[in-house]
Amino acid sequence: MKIAILPGDGIGPEIVAEAVKVLRALALPLEMETAPVGGAAYEAAGHPLPDATLALAQQADAVLFGAVGDWKYDTLPRPLRPEQAILGLRKQLGLFANFRPALCYEQLTHASSLKPELVAGLDILIIRELTGDIYFGQPRGRRAAPDGPFAGAEEAFDTMRYSRPEIERIARVAFEAARQRNRKVTSVDKANVLETFQLWKDVVTEVHRDYPDVELDHMYVDNAAMQLVKAPKKFDVIVTGNMFGDILSDEAAMLTGSIGMLPSASLNERGQGLYEPSHGSAPDIAGKGVANPLATILSAAMMLRYSLKQPEAADRIEAAVQRVLAQGLRTADIASPGCTVVGTAQMGDAVVRAL
Amino acid sequence: MKIAILPGDGIGPEIVAEAVKVLRALALPLEMETAPVGGAAYEAAGHPLPDATLALAQQADAVLFGAVGDWKYDTLPRPLRPEQAILGLRKQLGLFANFRPALCYEQLTHASSLKPELVAGLDILIIRELTGDIYFGQPRGRRAAPDGPFAGAEEAFDTMRYSRPEIERIARVAFEAARQRNRKVTSVDKANVLETFQLWKDVVTEVHRDYPDVELDHMYVDNAAMQLVKAPKKFDVIVTGNMFGDILSDEAAMLTGSIGMLPSASLNERGQGLYEPSHGSAPDIAGKGVANPLATILSAAMMLRYSLKQPEAADRIEAAVQRVLAQGLRTADIASPGCTVVGTAQMGDAVVRAL
Ligand SMILES: CC(C)[C@H](C(=O)O)[C@@H](O)C(=O)O
Ligand SMILES: CC(C)[C@H](C(=O)O)[C@@H](O)C(=O)O
Repeated sequence: MKIAILPGDGIGPEIVAEAVKVLRALALPLEMETAPVGGAAYEAAGHPLPDATLALAQQADAVLFGAVGDWKYDTLPRPLRPEQAILGLRKQLGLFANFRPALCYEQLTHASSLKPELVAGLDILIIRELTGDIYFGQPRGRRAAPDGPFAGAEEAFDTMRYSRPEIERIARVAFEAARQRNRKVTSVDKANVLETFQLWKDVVTEVHRDYPDVELDHMYVDNAAMQLVKAPKKFDVIVTGNMFGDILSDEAAMLTGSIGMLPSASLNERGQGLYEPSHGSAPDIAGKGVANPLATILSAAMMLRYSLKQPEAADRIEAAVQRVLAQGLRTADIASPGCTVVGTAQMGDAVVRAL
Repeated sequence: MKIAILPGDGIGPEIVAEAVKVLRALALPLEMETAPVGGAAYEAAGHPLPDATLALAQQADAVLFGAVGDWKYDTLPRPLRPEQAILGLRKQLGLFANFRPALCYEQLTHASSLKPELVAGLDILIIRELTGDIYFGQPRGRRAAPDGPFAGAEEAFDTMRYSRPEIERIARVAFEAARQRNRKVTSVDKANVLETFQLWKDVVTEVHRDYPDVELDHMYVDNAAMQLVKAPKKFDVIVTGNMFGDILSDEAAMLTGSIGMLPSASLNERGQGLYEPSHGSAPDIAGKGVANPLATILSAAMMLRYSLKQPEAADRIEAAVQRVLAQGLRTADIASPGCTVVGTAQMGDAVVRAL
């Protein structure tokens, strides 16, 4: 089993190092190879996703990804910015299905902005389509406006697009996932305004005929943004497009109050996957040894479960994380009175001990 | 001063009736004329925005709008659905600047999903561009995918577009508004992915040179969705495009816990405006006399201030609403122990008495 390790920028290298520590402690036949990505790769090789890094990711069974990005690259031309690496990996590897759990850990309920009764026990799975929509749709660019009230003025434009097979496959992923959970899917669209999401709604409704045991409802994206705040526990699985999924999965993650704990998985049709924490590269705390490695460690667990078919190893890691929380160990981002605040490496060591 | 009264569907007629009651009590020379809109207009005249209704709105100094929409129209062809009326009014009247305050009333802080310390005293103004973006961008439609991995398959598409002058004018509105407040503007974009929002960011930055007394920062939309949950009080004015503004303004409204209290204004370059509550048509409680009319009454106050240049009358209404809240009167949506629950008409009467 071959894993490409792409630490990236900011806190990426620190948190990935802890996840690698935990993977090694499992004593499984895992072959791990590291390559630069993002700003680090731009510095080292002049491109955020060098060919060698992409090739390594393509040959691996799974990619363990840290985070990319730093303010200092904001002035680079767009194709050289760190974020292009993650967009490029998603597209080149065909990672169309993004799993973003929003879980509220019992011991961390207090950390949420929301009143505890609204988030205690929260367990939502957001399934975001990741290779289509306005993220990749052509044409896009700048031009003189060809028509409309400002014809002739400089304008920029992008194209939102979804085809029927793209919607079908992500809908199936959502219904299958719901079968492993509470059998309820909320499809989020903006069919009242967008042609793209009228097709989305139509196709999800059609695919639903094959899953009569799963409940389906449709919700407009603006309403979904509200209902997540009002009553998040009413959701089970949310399925939506790339753009809306970007916004709603971050909103939902923040509702839990412990985004430093949330892993993610991005899968392609062959089960290959990229695994990364839901949070970003946090350049402000990089190198200080205070970042929370648990989201990355839990991403490694998802990797073992989904791409490497080692469910027991995944369970072991998740149980170890639970144990460490029960012991009262916390990194600074999730600290609370009465707990022991530890650094990045200490947290990784604690998980290894708890395995 | 001529006002077009468009009650619309669901609770629209009930809540607008109370706002009209309050306007009449002001004894100002207001000429009010009512016309059907939305589903009600479709039933009466076969179209959600009949020519006569549009003409009335165009001739008026301001439009007081209730709400449109009902599940029963979901199966109509898109051009006949109630939402088309509001989109048509925005476009035909050129209502490019949407003001969506997210205010937390002292007496209603408890109603928020968020912990009281996070929302007490919250006062954000979201300025959403309302006539551009993917809402109106052409081309759009269905076709066989012209290229890409699913070339030939059925696809749907929409076009996101913003021109420089469109961004400039909404940016100016935001900076001017910030000068009346805490002089801080957060421009929300997705410049790391979208060409449209790279231009948005560039132009907002340029316009900012004329407002050196206002602080400007830029935030990605996914991060904004998170920061609204984490620390909403850090925002003063948020300016963003039509699509992101739709999502974020609803999220922010729900954070206050009292969306039934939130008015909105949509203005064009001549100061003509459409005023409507932030909440929707709530068909489930329509006709029961329990809907909260305060958002509509406060929208009438915004109308007096912005389009009719009657700031004292606006102040009187807002003070009257405060007084009614202080008296402990509440509609069901904002009820809490120890308060007196009243119906829609009783609430309107109470505001009139408090004037
Ligand atoms: C960095 C950015 C391009 C990316 C996205 O928008 O998809 C990020 O926000 C994410 O959600 O992984
Ligand atoms: C009804 C719908 C078309 C509309 C929009 O998306 O703009 C509504 O959500 C709003 O925010 O006024």
